[in-house]
Amino acid sequence: MLTKDVHRNVVTLHKKRDFKGLNQLFRTIPAVDVAGFIRPWPLQDRIQVIEELPVAESAKIFSRLPYSGQHELAGSMGHENFVSILIAMAYDERTRFLQNLPSEEANRMLALLPKERRDKASRLLGHRKDSAGRLMTPDFIAIQAQWTVQEAFAHIRTYGRDSETLNVLLHPSETKIEELRKHRNIVLHVDDTVPKASTLFQKYQRTVLPVVDADRLLLGILTVDDILHMNEKINTRAIQSIGGNEALDEPYLSIPLLRMFRKRGGWLVILFIGEMLTATAMRFFEAEIARAVVLALFVPLIISSGGNSGSQASTLIIRALALGEIHLNDWWRVVRRELVTGLSLGGLLGAIGFLRITAWSLVKPIYGPHWPWVALTVGLSLVGVVLWGSLSGSMLPFILKRAKLDPATSSAPFVATLVDVTGLIIYFSVAYAVLKGTLL
Amino acid sequence: MLTKDVHRNVVTLHKKRDFKGLNQLFRTIPAVDVAGFIRPWPLQDRIQVIEELPVAESAKIFSRLPYSGQHELAGSMGHENFVSILIAMAYDERTRFLQNLPSEEANRMLALLPKERRDKASRLLGHRKDSAGRLMTPDFIAIQAQWTVQEAFAHIRTYGRDSETLNVLLHPSETKIEELRKHRNIVLHVDDTVPKASTLFQKYQRTVLPVVDADRLLLGILTVDDILHMNEKINTRAIQSIGGNEALDEPYLSIPLLRMFRKRGGWLVILFIGEMLTATAMRFFEAEIARAVVLALFVPLIISSGGNSGSQASTLIIRALALGEIHLNDWWRVVRRELVTGLSLGGLLGAIGFLRITAWSLVKPIYGPHWPWVALTVGLSLVGVVLWGSLSGSMLPFILKRAKLDPATSSAPFVATLVDVTGLIIYFSVAYAVLKGTLL
Repeated sequence: MLTKDVHRNVVTLHKKRDFKGLNQLFRTIPAVDVAGFIRPWPLQDRIQVIEELPVAESAKIFSRLPYSGQHELAGSMGHENFVSILIAMAYDERTRFLQNLPSEEANRMLALLPKERRDKASRLLGHRKDSAGRLMTPDFIAIQAQWTVQEAFAHIRTYGRDSETLNVLLHPSETKIEELRKHRNIVLHVDDTVPKASTLFQKYQRTVLPVVDADRLLLGILTVDDILHMNEKINTRAIQSIGGNEALDEPYLSIPLLRMFRKRGGWLVILFIGEMLTATAMRFFEAEIARAVVLALFVPLIISSGGNSGSQASTLIIRALALGEIHLNDWWRVVRRELVTGLSLGGLLGAIGFLRITAWSLVKPIYGPHWPWVALTVGLSLVGVVLWGSLSGSMLPFILKRAKLDPATSSAPFVATLVDVTGLIIYFSVAYAVLKGTLL
Repeated sequence: MLTKDVHRNVVTLHKKRDFKGLNQLFRTIPAVDVAGFIRPWPLQDRIQVIEELPVAESAKIFSRLPYSGQHELAGSMGHENFVSILIAMAYDERTRFLQNLPSEEANRMLALLPKERRDKASRLLGHRKDSAGRLMTPDFIAIQAQWTVQEAFAHIRTYGRDSETLNVLLHPSETKIEELRKHRNIVLHVDDTVPKASTLFQKYQRTVLPVVDADRLLLGILTVDDILHMNEKINTRAIQSIGGNEALDEPYLSIPLLRMFRKRGGWLVILFIGEMLTATAMRFFEAEIARAVVLALFVPLIISSGGNSGSQASTLIIRALALGEIHLNDWWRVVRRELVTGLSLGGLLGAIGFLRITAWSLVKPIYGPHWPWVALTVGLSLVGVVLWGSLSGSMLPFILKRAKLDPATSSAPFVATLVDVTGLIIYFSVAYAVLKGTLL
């Protein structure tokens, strides 16, 4: 949501090592964006920014750093500075920081807090992980039922502290509204998708955001509970699609059976027809199977390993695309990562497969006299099939998205089908090369 | 969140057909709960409740009914009553209702609205589905930057309308707080999980909820943006697990390759070792394959069909369990549904498989002289394997949850592995029974 100017300014000031200028600039932009700017900087630069800002501000920035960054800073910055940040953090942010530490270290940190705060903080850590108790803040203002609205406002003005929701109430009645408008740049565009809107609500911790058109004309407001609802629907659709269903759009127990049959039957038939190619591929190698039946034994093992590695890769990429962690033009970076990962995973399974056949054969000659060549065939095929599964599994979501389709569409079974057919070709080709002259 | 007393009262009053009493009671409980109560009632009873409540209240109840219920009411209740409900609905709720109607009918409904409201409403429907523009409400109060806080409050009091967030501001300063506390029963318990909390935030459309302990002592507050964030993490973990990964807990592009290798390699090896049983099963039928190589041709087709139907069933159940749509003790209802669905889907694929082999064989005798028996074997095996895939895929999440494990854990590939091994046994057993005396 920041303008390009701000980005350019930060880069220039940092290059000039003008930390005074940086600190001035950082006071005017949201803490989460400051955290984003300084995250990749050298440790000393990060410390300098954090230590020189007012503690209220640096506590917010510290809270929005990823856990690894927090840990590094905590261990390297001045003790006194760190203690004041720890004290100034919001309760829920502090819980999130402390719960990732080894319990001994967390206790050492808790001991640094003033008594009342320490007690509350350690009580929060006592609740089960991912429970409401672990996530909440005990930092609320209680008002009494018998008070009037006026009395309640007066109480809030006196005892309330800075918070997104209370901002307006905490200022004297004569304050001009424009003085209160911090970070007013955060708006949704009318065409923003639900995941995009969801990211902004989370990043800036808002509960309501204005919606504007291309001319930045205010059209309406969007509240976060609607986003929560839509997000759940979208995730349901994604999970159901990954499993090879058409989205049910109704609860499992109440959808009529005929409709469920149609929602599942459609994709099942498409995948079945695709999978028929395996029979065609197998028939192509029928003569080889007849000559060396031992080859047939490993067909399910090999194609399923390709399918499994394909499912892994495709679900990782689908989710990363949905969260906006990767974009269409990242495909080449993904290919390189999957090349390395696919080769190593294939090597691992290949080695296990090779050793398994070797071990059995040393005990009992169940795979015939040419077992070393069979073991080699299976091992090499696994490397190829797992590599191919990882590559095609990671690329399919890109292709679907490029074609303006939902990347989640039936991807896992779809990849499995693709890899089944090509896996057979890889397997029998390797077999032909390795076993020519012995078994074949 | 309603007490058992309220439930009992509603049932009693409805049984006595005391609609006056019901309407009195319904004014004191949240609209979403009223919608829940009346949803299963006969149409005439629903109409009576909706028509006799003040229109502001009935518009809210109408908004919280599922689409099918809204449609039914719209077509059956008094025209005038329906028009006033349509006018009284919030913009975003009306968009949700209208977007599900055929466009002709939606236009007819729009024409019923007063001009200004009609224009705004049809503009909302003009935005892309699932975009911020489609979800927002244009019903906001604009305040000017140069106003003081006091002036802004005065403006809001004069022009603001009822809304969750503005409640307190809209009342004269002398109003007692207790008069404003509607639906105060809605609280989170300190042990509530994120999905449970998420459901309550959505259902009651709140942005902040109090968190209490077992004695209903107020411990803190939880804001919905934290829930949004946790929900996203939980959904990421679920999707990654379904694909057979250990949750990465880091963005795809930034996780070190060695850690990614470990997160994927662990499950891949476990599944590979499980899948080795297919080689054992195949070896058990080695003699049959040697005698009838044609049997080997259909192995990938049959086991993958089982895997696909298993993935479908398991992802549907995982999601329904996560959303709380089904619970552990619903397992028997699920078994009955999957029996019917699995048999029908199996029958469908079996028929296609049978016809495919028949069709090919009539053109060219590629499956040998006994092709009718081969076709029968494949067809029957598909029925069995798809049925078995659906049943085991739907039951595995229950078993994992019962064992206090995450139902999403590697479920799709896990089911596939299970079904691969058992699918082979089904296939070769059917083959043995059908082909005994001909091919075998």
